[in-house]
Amino acid sequence: MMIRLGLVGIGKIARDQHLPAIRADDRYELVATASRHAQLDGVPGHVDIAAMIAGDHRLGAVSICTPPVGRHAIAAAAIDAGLHVMLEKPPAATTTEISALADYARARGVTLFATWHSREAAGVGPARDWLSDKRIRAAHIRWKEDIRRWHPGQEWILDAGGFGVFDPGINALSIMAAILPAPLLLDAAQIDIPEGRGSPIAATMAMRSGDAEVTADLDFLQTGPQSWDIEVETDAGTLRLSMGGSVLELPGGEPVTREDREYPRLYTRFAELIAAGKSDVDIRPLQLVADAFLVAERRTVAPFQF
Amino acid sequence: MMIRLGLVGIGKIARDQHLPAIRADDRYELVATASRHAQLDGVPGHVDIAAMIAGDHRLGAVSICTPPVGRHAIAAAAIDAGLHVMLEKPPAATTTEISALADYARARGVTLFATWHSREAAGVGPARDWLSDKRIRAAHIRWKEDIRRWHPGQEWILDAGGFGVFDPGINALSIMAAILPAPLLLDAAQIDIPEGRGSPIAATMAMRSGDAEVTADLDFLQTGPQSWDIEVETDAGTLRLSMGGSVLELPGGEPVTREDREYPRLYTRFAELIAAGKSDVDIRPLQLVADAFLVAERRTVAPFQF
Repeated sequence: MMIRLGLVGIGKIARDQHLPAIRADDRYELVATASRHAQLDGVPGHVDIAAMIAGDHRLGAVSICTPPVGRHAIAAAAIDAGLHVMLEKPPAATTTEISALADYARARGVTLFATWHSREAAGVGPARDWLSDKRIRAAHIRWKEDIRRWHPGQEWILDAGGFGVFDPGINALSIMAAILPAPLLLDAAQIDIPEGRGSPIAATMAMRSGDAEVTADLDFLQTGPQSWDIEVETDAGTLRLSMGGSVLELPGGEPVTREDREYPRLYTRFAELIAAGKSDVDIRPLQLVADAFLVAERRTVAPFQF
Repeated sequence: MMIRLGLVGIGKIARDQHLPAIRADDRYELVATASRHAQLDGVPGHVDIAAMIAGDHRLGAVSICTPPVGRHAIAAAAIDAGLHVMLEKPPAATTTEISALADYARARGVTLFATWHSREAAGVGPARDWLSDKRIRAAHIRWKEDIRRWHPGQEWILDAGGFGVFDPGINALSIMAAILPAPLLLDAAQIDIPEGRGSPIAATMAMRSGDAEVTADLDFLQTGPQSWDIEVETDAGTLRLSMGGSVLELPGGEPVTREDREYPRLYTRFAELIAAGKSDVDIRPLQLVADAFLVAERRTVAPFQF
């Protein structure tokens, strides 16, 4: 059955990733959008979710790509209208908000899908399968990128509540929590906040999963080569995921690169969840970030200008 | 059926609250303790949970009163041994740890009870019942106490991960989340961290519950009269809970004080959960605290010495 979909938020991620995935998937018909600033040619546009819901589009589901602050109210309005809901990452501004949405979707009997697109990167599923019967000794995240290159002028990302370096880092945590067999738990963290800013420009995390030590090294000031790498040391050798999960290297093998189909896979999964009457809301990556702020040693570092 | 109970951690809260409640409740037999530093006369003592489990006491359940850091490993060992588990508040050092424990208890088929003792204060249940059919306009927490009086020399409480003023404040949040009909969500927070310390000595929170604005004002530097007060403004007048939930004043009525039986009620509830094969793990108060750290504007304030 065709899913009559509304898209909320028409920013860069919507145009680059969501729209091509929706248009290539014949299970979806994009019947309306909601955005304060933008419209799409040929699709009825509304200023907000309330107007879109009132717009008589016989909507079945919405995909929400607005920034995390304010997403709870949008998603709650959609659930209230009996619509299935898919959320960009991170699923909400706080852990409490996403937990409340999960409860509300359950009570209303609609599907809620909190997506973590990095988990759909080509190497992640095979990495999880390979690790499932290995003894994990240690694991490491190195997520180092240039904020000026990937987030030019996005001052809000360093405001309080903007997540700072955890905005990309949560992708690494979402992968690590998915591929390790035992729960990923936080012991300690250090966060470096530039003078006058509200969120960290660098962070380290000391975690554990079963007996294994897990570390994360997150940096927003990496010029030159960028790193989105995960390494897992096991009794059968070391697994390496690089390029954000796209490239997988198993012990003794060559790195394998496959085409990334992250967003098409998310929309496939959303359709499957709707058909099955189920939800998929994993709040652990967001919990790990909130926990990092909760336990962190804080340092004030040099002021940062874009 | 008698519950053969092991007590882990013999500190002030165990002696002041847990032991009297356990000894007054004929559903429990205290058969062993685990503590690195203390023992109880007439009860077999062990240095840690592993030794207690190995001690052939035919344990059925454990109550864990150690500090939150390290509690996850103790609880996981108990669940692993098939024991029912009751946790002092906060239930773990991080939100991820308590979520993992809840999953583990479910998988092992044992009862996990994450207690929030303040919810058992005499006024809380009647407050929740009275509010259930009211329209809530606003609500306020004023939780102001003297750290030197209630936490003398407890330097760790102001270390990173020590929760600071949220150590008492989480009690207020546990009450507020229990008495308001709609979920309690955080919008913003401000935390004041003394120079050289890792956790806040004062904090404010801006929250919402349905349409109602909810505020919290938490202070650790209150000399003179202490405040553990909650006020809820409704269409039927203002409800006041004071003395940490012990005293309830409804509109037009006199304040009503009843005897507090917080810990006896927790042990009654634990026995009921075990009998019913259920768990009770509400992570929302801890989520609200982690969320506060996640979104907070931070200020460095004057150094603090006990």
